Amino acid sequence: MQIRSLQTCATTKARSAELQTDHGTIQTPVFMPVGTAGSVKSLSPDDLIDTGSQIILGNTYHLLLRPGMEIIRSAGGLHKFMSWQGPLLTDSGGYQVFSLGRMNKISEVGVVFQSVLDGSRHSLSPEISMDIQRTLGSDIVMAFDECTAYPATREVAQISMELTHRWEERSLHYFRSNPPHYGHDQQLFGIVQGSVYPELRKLSARVLTDLGFDGYAIGGLSVGEPKEDMYAMTDVVTDILPPEQPRYLMGVGKPEDLVQAVALGIDMFDCVLPTRNARHGIMFTWDGPVSVKAAREKDVHEPLDADCECYTCQNFSRAYLRHLFKANELLVYRLASLHNIHFYHSLMSGMRTAIQAGDFPQFQNDFFNRYDVKRAGGQR
Amino acid sequence: MQIRSLQTCATTKARSAELQTDHGTIQTPVFMPVGTAGSVKSLSPDDLIDTGSQIILGNTYHLLLRPGMEIIRSAGGLHKFMSWQGPLLTDSGGYQVFSLGRMNKISEVGVVFQSVLDGSRHSLSPEISMDIQRTLGSDIVMAFDECTAYPATREVAQISMELTHRWEERSLHYFRSNPPHYGHDQQLFGIVQGSVYPELRKLSARVLTDLGFDGYAIGGLSVGEPKEDMYAMTDVVTDILPPEQPRYLMGVGKPEDLVQAVALGIDMFDCVLPTRNARHGIMFTWDGPVSVKAAREKDVHEPLDADCECYTCQNFSRAYLRHLFKANELLVYRLASLHNIHFYHSLMSGMRTAIQAGDFPQFQNDFFNRYDVKRAGGQR
Repeated sequence: MQIRSLQTCATTKARSAELQTDHGTIQTPVFMPVGTAGSVKSLSPDDLIDTGSQIILGNTYHLLLRPGMEIIRSAGGLHKFMSWQGPLLTDSGGYQVFSLGRMNKISEVGVVFQSVLDGSRHSLSPEISMDIQRTLGSDIVMAFDECTAYPATREVAQISMELTHRWEERSLHYFRSNPPHYGHDQQLFGIVQGSVYPELRKLSARVLTDLGFDGYAIGGLSVGEPKEDMYAMTDVVTDILPPEQPRYLMGVGKPEDLVQAVALGIDMFDCVLPTRNARHGIMFTWDGPVSVKAAREKDVHEPLDADCECYTCQNFSRAYLRHLFKANELLVYRLASLHNIHFYHSLMSGMRTAIQAGDFPQFQNDFFNRYDVKRAGGQR
Repeated sequence: MQIRSLQTCATTKARSAELQTDHGTIQTPVFMPVGTAGSVKSLSPDDLIDTGSQIILGNTYHLLLRPGMEIIRSAGGLHKFMSWQGPLLTDSGGYQVFSLGRMNKISEVGVVFQSVLDGSRHSLSPEISMDIQRTLGSDIVMAFDECTAYPATREVAQISMELTHRWEERSLHYFRSNPPHYGHDQQLFGIVQGSVYPELRKLSARVLTDLGFDGYAIGGLSVGEPKEDMYAMTDVVTDILPPEQPRYLMGVGKPEDLVQAVALGIDMFDCVLPTRNARHGIMFTWDGPVSVKAAREKDVHEPLDADCECYTCQNFSRAYLRHLFKANELLVYRLASLHNIHFYHSLMSGMRTAIQAGDFPQFQNDFFNRYDVKRAGGQR
């Protein structure tokens, strides 16, 4: 998978480009909303398009357990099942097996685990994960890896990384030997591991690049390590990854993380934060996050952000949003999610425009001068 | 409030007309979705328009308790607070005081009750209800009445009805003496009571007609009485109400009830059924209600109704809806509500077209030949 129309920043490693998939073109840097169980929580496909979503995620783990692959297969794949016409990325399922617990066994072959839903036994391996993702029919498939727990000693991190490399090689081999199901092409991304050890990260980036994936992800970050480590690891890895292929920083993150990571050469992001925070009344603005449930909003008959073009800000006041939260009205989860996803996409589009205009360092500067990461807890 | 463009059925008492409000024209017969706490559950104003909603309801009781009248007043009324540009009807608050319990005292003056939210003490009277509805700024205001409990002896029903008449006269007097707040006009509807006693219903209809309201509602039905009583009471009342003014059957009902009541000369309906049922997975079709959560839907990759033009049926399968219900995905409450509200409006629009074409008896016949009221529990 070659990126096209690459434009780079002269000062930082920031880059803007296009990715072509059989379900459409993606402008990078891009944020990908997370549709865990076949739905980006509270949002319809039309909502996703209206907010500027170009590509969304599905989670293999959740979809495997419910509704199960038989139903997805008979629907003709995940795109058709959820009525999403655009590009779709699925993860390998591995991360949730590790993070949601209830793992019974991990071996060279793969993992055996119990469903968080009903305790039923399931297996995942590189081959099974590729089969599932062929059945899901995502445009971008992730190799099956072990997400190294944090903290990990260098020795543990290396053992885990080496297992990941063997699993990813098996993923690649199996993926290349088994064709897609639905007539559209799929791309396979490898995942760099190595915990917070720069030498392991460099080694991992080189091993995977030599294997030759369609794109590369950086995994095992945003799992509890200090921010400096997250940025440092990203920095060493993007120095090695081939510039003509896409780079995806998995599970990241907060608006400030996105700006920092774009400066380090990342093209793609996903995170549940904008939708999860929305459901808890935390809404993002260029001044920082705002808790719209706060008492001070009760008679503020102005939108969250008067300059925002999202449906929520164009139609509803902070006082109304607060009322809906207090009354547990279902509508508000959608209205808040619409705004937050729109904000994330505006942030990415602002960065794309800045990179293309040669202004990215200025954008970065302006963003950090204005954006107060701790605003939600403070005064208006 | 005069109806316009009245067209009547030659065989039944069905009628189709237009109602003019300062927020737009309403084509009758009309179904009004219920926006209890300032939101029709899970639906945005755009959703309401897309499904064909012409007028919606707000509940005085709920809005009085939360967010409270101070916030609604400072917002400039309920229309602005909830961003609904169309016609709006509010009830008097009385029904919820009686039905939600926690009433402390009922007297000639009015009622004292405790909030279901926090136990705080509140009063409602004809004058207070009119003040609140002036503050809400609804296009149609309901007089303050006592909804007679069912069953009631004739004596109890008469005492209650007479109290209602005194309260409604006070409502009318106070309403006429206190102007609207926001520059648009408001209409006041009287409410006919009298339980299941035809003589009381007739008397009530005459007393209220003599008082001279802008429109008339029939209250105290669909509260547990046999269907035949509901229809019989509607029939005797619509024989007396002035034909040039609108008639509203409060809190009704199921699709089959709407068809029957239109045949008896009713113009307006409201009910939480389509949205409440939607949230429980009961979706309406021309063949009857369908439980989309049923196991038999799990791999049905077809819309609920292939001929339905709602967003849900145009984009999603029964299998997907069932999956979303099983996964408790927020999106499904909106998708199911969109369909059910669209179905109710299609039913009303079908009746309007039939009345205007002189075909209402045929419509009625076709509807009851096809619609199976017990379908949800049965086989597909």
